[in-house]
Amino acid sequence: MHDFVDLNCDMGEGFGQWVLGEAPDEDIMSLISSANIAAGFHAGDPNSMDRVIKLAHDYGVGLGAHPGYRDLQGFGRRYIKTSAEELVNDIVYQVGAIREFGRRHGISLQHVKPHGALYMEAAANEELSKMIIDMLSKTCGDVILFCMEASKTYQIAKQSGYPVVREFYADRDYDNNGSIVFKRQVGRPDPKAVAEKCIKACETGTVTTVEGDEIEIGFESICFHSDTPGALEIGRAIREGLTGAGITIASAATVLEQSK
Amino acid sequence: MHDFVDLNCDMGEGFGQWVLGEAPDEDIMSLISSANIAAGFHAGDPNSMDRVIKLAHDYGVGLGAHPGYRDLQGFGRRYIKTSAEELVNDIVYQVGAIREFGRRHGISLQHVKPHGALYMEAAANEELSKMIIDMLSKTCGDVILFCMEASKTYQIAKQSGYPVVREFYADRDYDNNGSIVFKRQVGRPDPKAVAEKCIKACETGTVTTVEGDEIEIGFESICFHSDTPGALEIGRAIREGLTGAGITIASAATVLEQSK
Amino acid sequence: MHDFVDLNCDMGEGFGQWVLGEAPDEDIMSLISSANIAAGFHAGDPNSMDRVIKLAHDYGVGLGAHPGYRDLQGFGRRYIKTSAEELVNDIVYQVGAIREFGRRHGISLQHVKPHGALYMEAAANEELSKMIIDMLSKTCGDVILFCMEASKTYQIAKQSGYPVVREFYADRDYDNNGSIVFKRQVGRPDPKAVAEKCIKACETGTVTTVEGDEIEIGFESICFHSDTPGALEIGRAIREGLTGAGITIASAATVLEQSK
Amino acid sequence: MHDFVDLNCDMGEGFGQWVLGEAPDEDIMSLISSANIAAGFHAGDPNSMDRVIKLAHDYGVGLGAHPGYRDLQGFGRRYIKTSAEELVNDIVYQVGAIREFGRRHGISLQHVKPHGALYMEAAANEELSKMIIDMLSKTCGDVILFCMEASKTYQIAKQSGYPVVREFYADRDYDNNGSIVFKRQVGRPDPKAVAEKCIKACETGTVTTVEGDEIEIGFESICFHSDTPGALEIGRAIREGLTGAGITIASAATVLEQSK
Repeated sequence: MHDFVDLNCDMGEGFGQWVLGEAPDEDIMSLISSANIAAGFHAGDPNSMDRVIKLAHDYGVGLGAHPGYRDLQGFGRRYIKTSAEELVNDIVYQVGAIREFGRRHGISLQHVKPHGALYMEAAANEELSKMIIDMLSKTCGDVILFCMEASKTYQIAKQSGYPVVREFYADRDYDNNGSIVFKRQVGRPDPKAVAEKCIKACETGTVTTVEGDEIEIGFESICFHSDTPGALEIGRAIREGLTGAGITIASAATVLEQSK
Repeated sequence: MHDFVDLNCDMGEGFGQWVLGEAPDEDIMSLISSANIAAGFHAGDPNSMDRVIKLAHDYGVGLGAHPGYRDLQGFGRRYIKTSAEELVNDIVYQVGAIREFGRRHGISLQHVKPHGALYMEAAANEELSKMIIDMLSKTCGDVILFCMEASKTYQIAKQSGYPVVREFYADRDYDNNGSIVFKRQVGRPDPKAVAEKCIKACETGTVTTVEGDEIEIGFESICFHSDTPGALEIGRAIREGLTGAGITIASAATVLEQSK
Repeated sequence: MHDFVDLNCDMGEGFGQWVLGEAPDEDIMSLISSANIAAGFHAGDPNSMDRVIKLAHDYGVGLGAHPGYRDLQGFGRRYIKTSAEELVNDIVYQVGAIREFGRRHGISLQHVKPHGALYMEAAANEELSKMIIDMLSKTCGDVILFCMEASKTYQIAKQSGYPVVREFYADRDYDNNGSIVFKRQVGRPDPKAVAEKCIKACETGTVTTVEGDEIEIGFESICFHSDTPGALEIGRAIREGLTGAGITIASAATVLEQSK
Repeated sequence: MHDFVDLNCDMGEGFGQWVLGEAPDEDIMSLISSANIAAGFHAGDPNSMDRVIKLAHDYGVGLGAHPGYRDLQGFGRRYIKTSAEELVNDIVYQVGAIREFGRRHGISLQHVKPHGALYMEAAANEELSKMIIDMLSKTCGDVILFCMEASKTYQIAKQSGYPVVREFYADRDYDNNGSIVFKRQVGRPDPKAVAEKCIKACETGTVTTVEGDEIEIGFESICFHSDTPGALEIGRAIREGLTGAGITIASAATVLEQSK
């Protein structure tokens, strides 16, 4: 079903002295085709951005901004009730920061992916999704927006013809609505099982839900998290599994181009 | 001596509910030709940036990024000892944010002016000035750097041919070194006296120092602060005074062009 | 109906260079009997706390901690979805900070009043109210908790016998549920009308709602906000009105003692 | 020379999702007699404080506040130029927060130890040391202040009779001035060598400097850092080494009492 798929991962999610995830950034970067770079509100500081965005350039990985709620303590995983307008301003701010480091290192912005609770809020909130896409149309034009298939974000992007990529979550569970089951703490998944889940999703376009059913799932990119315990092994297993199954891992922009 | 001069002011220096300065942003914006927009580290939040940068567009004012130390409590007026590399990353981050709001509102970045203690540190620190200019050369190219004449920043910008504008501080005192006397609290200056100081500086290229001497001072832009008590009256007095003296207020880019 | 009533106001709600409200702290402090001191998460920094808590001591005003959500940009007026446990930890932190400045200036903690959206969340959230009261029972013992009558907080405090003071909001409107109508922006109320509303509430125990009805309202303290436009005039009008009507303004602790 | 010595360690130096150091807090806590708890400005959030202070209670470890510069990104290791008064307010704030969690868990505050660059600044700055001690005399009275022997802090505490404990740094190098050589990054020391250095210091009162000389060093407490690579092994080696050499590890309060 999929000859090409993007493999994306959140990167640079430390802050100052603190790092997140066990795996060195270089190792993760060598496995993926798109990187979502923490932009300072839920994680990431200018030093980490500079370093990780240079890595994205060096490894030929698609550069993505990963804006979140202004909430370092909660890592952007806590919903904050505010206006869509305010959230869009937060996104503009963070996207601009990431783009500027990209300019410095000679890599242009490929995509924007809201983080954590902001991603989930956009998925559920039509007004917010609409305002994000309006804003991106003005400031970015051809920068791809990442989202889930089961989201207002996807619906509105499709309606307005804005370039959009749907994600398949390798290290998260799905429910029968096609929504991922959101957790603040995640266990250590079995890399092999994760890889098989991805191969199956690519080959059959389906995933098994927490309720035990099979549902169809549309996507152009597979996501795993660098702070999931065992992230490096998971990433390797996915890459090897997909490649072994004849599926090419390519950047989101390439996959989108191919799917036309 | 000066037929053209730029008039710049720090703008958007509130945060959330808090505002700084008594004058409405619109009133200040109608007086100036270049605005230095607080970029989030010492002041300014995405909502204020969005609003003030739209104003800059609407009033045809040159857009400037005003990056500071990461120090909301100290308003960027406290020196933080760290590496030049780290400070340059802070600047990249903040410049990118401002530029992105500019993209949103159809106004490109005209200049960068470090704020407060960061401005003074760059003035004194050759390595930092050099790294800022190297970075700007890569990411911005033709964006003007603001500084004082009596600074390493100016020396290095001239040496490397980077576009630079020297400022004359209307509402600050000078010492015999040509340095401004830095204060955390400023009194309420007499607008007329400030205007006369500016006219004299434009006409004769000199300023009276706190020691009582006359020194030569080179500049292409005049700066006043929106949080100086009576800022609006000061701004009006400067604008009327200069205009009355036959000096045209024009954006930094225009002044730089004229001076060639 | 009320011979004694407390008059409380939020104080110290600036941050760094920024101040909130037009009135000098000394002037407000001279009018009130209890002060709710911003504790750093939604507003307030250690310098403002030190200064305002010394003022509370000097004016003989009851010292209160005013903990909020960790949200400087939103001024604690944005709901943040998180566990009650996490919020109680936030409150412990902020209460301790205020208490310590009280120790420094020889004034003990009289009360705790959650701020903004945290106050409203506690009012609606039984688990959170219960956990706050359990925590205060352990760490503070006899420190009074401020809340609205129409709240879970009040119900649970009464059930568990924890010392509690109900507030009447002088500068906010009520609905028929006895709840205040929460706004991020407030107009400039007429001081005389506010004072009359307070006198009526004290004398008849009723308030007119936004729906136009009269409802009963129980309270031991009247609150006005230092950032309401015209706060100083409002505070003066309330104090003069109440005093003129033969009602004594006394600290929350005194009022609670009298009501036994 | 020493029959009793305190063993202290910085604890709770994560923030939100981020942790610092490899070792579980429980394991470190079981080795030490005094814990310096990060108080929110350089590291630590209310959740970590609550958890680690409960652990200090459960393990019978002396509770210390570890206030730092307001600098999460720099982990309090960057000097910030400001007034001593402002820094003392920062310390009051953070000490109060720690003390309040102590009240919650039934453990009183034993000591205060400034963190990182603030500790070094106090060591060099007589005015700051004096103001800290004046403040502690008023708010804490009998709470022990931790410092280095080669510091203004120690000199002034001795002069004013304020209870003070000198530290010996197990995992840092000394120079001939008796000052520790400050680093932002630390290698992985050999636990056995560290333990021997501590035993020698306890038995002979001397340490070998980076210049290769032997200098005398006075102390009542030994410090190691939970974020030094191999911290757990270092802590175990120190504890076993000291105990094997007949030296009793006891809380700072006990050691101070014994030394009278």
